[in-house]
Amino acid sequence: MDAAEFRVKAKEVVDFIADYMETIENRRVSPDVNPGYLINSVPKDAPEGPESFEDIMKDFKNIILPGILHHQHPLFNAYFPLGHSFASILGTMLSDGIGGISTSWAISPACTELEMVVTDWLGKLVSLPKQFLHEGGEGGGSIQGSGSECIFLALSAAKRHAQQNTAERAPRLVAYISCLANICVQKACSLGSVILRQIEVDENLSLSVEALKKSIMIDKSNGLDPFFVCATVGTTSCCSFDDVYELSEMCEKENLWLHVDAAYAGCALICPEFHYLINGKENISSISFNPHKWLLTTTECAVLWVKNKKSLNDCLAANATYLQHKHQAETTDFRNWGIGITRPFRALKLWFVLRLYGISGLQEFIRRHIKLAKRMKDHIESNHVFEIVGKSNLGLVAFCIKGPSKLTTTLLRNINESGNLHLTEASVNGRSVIRYVVCAEKAKEKDVDFAWSVISSAADGIFSARG
Amino acid sequence: MDAAEFRVKAKEVVDFIADYMETIENRRVSPDVNPGYLINSVPKDAPEGPESFEDIMKDFKNIILPGILHHQHPLFNAYFPLGHSFASILGTMLSDGIGGISTSWAISPACTELEMVVTDWLGKLVSLPKQFLHEGGEGGGSIQGSGSECIFLALSAAKRHAQQNTAERAPRLVAYISCLANICVQKACSLGSVILRQIEVDENLSLSVEALKKSIMIDKSNGLDPFFVCATVGTTSCCSFDDVYELSEMCEKENLWLHVDAAYAGCALICPEFHYLINGKENISSISFNPHKWLLTTTECAVLWVKNKKSLNDCLAANATYLQHKHQAETTDFRNWGIGITRPFRALKLWFVLRLYGISGLQEFIRRHIKLAKRMKDHIESNHVFEIVGKSNLGLVAFCIKGPSKLTTTLLRNINESGNLHLTEASVNGRSVIRYVVCAEKAKEKDVDFAWSVISSAADGIFSARG
Repeated sequence: MDAAEFRVKAKEVVDFIADYMETIENRRVSPDVNPGYLINSVPKDAPEGPESFEDIMKDFKNIILPGILHHQHPLFNAYFPLGHSFASILGTMLSDGIGGISTSWAISPACTELEMVVTDWLGKLVSLPKQFLHEGGEGGGSIQGSGSECIFLALSAAKRHAQQNTAERAPRLVAYISCLANICVQKACSLGSVILRQIEVDENLSLSVEALKKSIMIDKSNGLDPFFVCATVGTTSCCSFDDVYELSEMCEKENLWLHVDAAYAGCALICPEFHYLINGKENISSISFNPHKWLLTTTECAVLWVKNKKSLNDCLAANATYLQHKHQAETTDFRNWGIGITRPFRALKLWFVLRLYGISGLQEFIRRHIKLAKRMKDHIESNHVFEIVGKSNLGLVAFCIKGPSKLTTTLLRNINESGNLHLTEASVNGRSVIRYVVCAEKAKEKDVDFAWSVISSAADGIFSARG
Repeated sequence: MDAAEFRVKAKEVVDFIADYMETIENRRVSPDVNPGYLINSVPKDAPEGPESFEDIMKDFKNIILPGILHHQHPLFNAYFPLGHSFASILGTMLSDGIGGISTSWAISPACTELEMVVTDWLGKLVSLPKQFLHEGGEGGGSIQGSGSECIFLALSAAKRHAQQNTAERAPRLVAYISCLANICVQKACSLGSVILRQIEVDENLSLSVEALKKSIMIDKSNGLDPFFVCATVGTTSCCSFDDVYELSEMCEKENLWLHVDAAYAGCALICPEFHYLINGKENISSISFNPHKWLLTTTECAVLWVKNKKSLNDCLAANATYLQHKHQAETTDFRNWGIGITRPFRALKLWFVLRLYGISGLQEFIRRHIKLAKRMKDHIESNHVFEIVGKSNLGLVAFCIKGPSKLTTTLLRNINESGNLHLTEASVNGRSVIRYVVCAEKAKEKDVDFAWSVISSAADGIFSARG
């Protein structure tokens, strides 16, 4: 395909994307296909000769699209939002178009410096102390591919730090999270070969600091080495919040690395009324959240801020003759901040989002979503068969049917099988809950009301069937 | 920005990308800016209110572009190619536009199944045995963000496998590579907390199997646990090849995990004449290469194939109530194959590339690049002051000035400072070499000849200055 043909075809793709977004409500929200549906309908081998754009687009529409969950559908209320906006798409188009990378400052200084700029912009917006900013000197932010990567990197930096402090012997490291923390922390511990303790939660569904202290005490008395605590600000199951302040005091005293995983809820910190959620931030070691969740940025865009970049660089720095440059002492080489060496220019899409919306536009977006979630919460509380789980004060409402979990599970299955609305189930202290999350950028009150009508009539169906 | 405005602005971006590619030769290939050039020319904070697309594009052109290294410039001959094609850009636009993810099969079956299809297509094309294919059953391919990630995942799987075999005690694991292996293996070992041995190379600049055997013997006799060998097929410095056959025999005998890192050269395996480079493949455990290097696919697209997916899943599997689905026993959940859980739909761009070019188009591309590199090699060999390092039989030509390394280093600096041509330096057995790599998709003979004229007159300059 030459440039002339690209001009034509890429504009067709632009129109396809615009059409897709304008008519997304007409689609069934979730796919309805069986395993192998695609594998069995495409050739077993790559084509010998070139195929036409038209044939590929035809297959895209007829074979790919029926197997897609439409995360931007106004009745997609499952998982968490999958960041999306026209602003972000424009940024990706440009970064893919010019193909800059931020392996070292010298390769494409623009890629490195813009990443420093946007992570500082965002860091200030969410009230991070100066030590976490590039302009502060000792720390800074970096854009990683996933929240899981951020947590694994924080854990690796903490591990290196702990190993340096116990140079005499091989430490037996232990990490601590609440039982409601995201599964990616388990993954990070498995990859990092450290022991993981999942601590019970208190009545607020927050990590019980008392139970944590006890667990640390026992581990220490058994000769183990506590080194890392991951606080969750906004759990996946029910958006509960660990007490960062209390944990930060304790970690400071015990000399433990405290990471704050705010994958989803961290996006709400752009509104000052939520800054309290990370009180104690002066004493944390690192924090991450994903603009590709609730800040209108497409995958992959997860930001990790560390207070001391040395700890991160110590376990990730890698140099070679072909990467050396004369400014390396005074600049930032982001390959030393993550796993990948060929790092794409992800800062560009975040820059497009931050500028095209502006702070006010993004705050309006977050607050509107929270208001819509409140509307759903009010609906649910109006019906005595339901019970709200947790505080649900951001864009997620967790609820269940009073009584045995089986009722809630059946309710969810009936709702999702209709294909009219898509929700997900979680488990909180062994109890099934349904998660309703406001996701679509332009979600409206009528979408919430429709979702509620689907939920409440599905519940009626269950109770009338039971007589 | 609404859909109507997106239609207009995104088409402007399409035209910008086409213009950029059509006029790239008019640009200076490498940036000429100082540290802080961008940071000091943009605001210290995100804008309060929304800004216009026009203002952002103006900054993109005036502030970002001057700080970009133009990897698609015909006189960019440094590092390795940074994959790029209109086909791939169309794929990214669509995947960003619809936003599918492959966390579990159930979320968007199309994303999972297309990844299985394209990794099988590519696996067959490069002659991987059936065990490495999804249709084979026990193994399969997955698309990761970077080659570094592929190697870290292979190492982690190997580590888990080794730990399971030494359940009685904590093993002291040792990994082995050649001293010319990529720095990402060092990074993987650092993250995985395993000991790394860098083994000397033989006269072909291949990992010395004799030296390796000796090192393993010594480590074993000291109570250490050898577990992992990474063979490099196409070293970054000079594109030398480790002997996969000999290593595979040895690893089979010693029960070591053999990973083949073919980040760049693996792309050439789509041409049958290069299949010999991975002779012994039946006995390797895993292999990875990056279509985002030399197969016209934009970042991020690195493919990792494992012979036994269980070993990979054992250290990466993570489940939660909200991710469970009724088909999980019979389908593939790619979150268990890598670090990230929110995995973008990277298969789409590779599918576009494989179909729009077809096998014949991609083979023609690779062979044309190799022919151009041969042309440069012939030029260099025609001048007695130069010496070719290694065999340089793919798209990379490594060479140096006969005599002290300082001459080669000076030559490279003089060439790069002109901004007319961009090359990189490497170190091979302590000696400086210049790497010339054919990178641009549509590179021509005249580009090679021009590059040669720059190189040879820069060399003349050095020798005439020395008198």
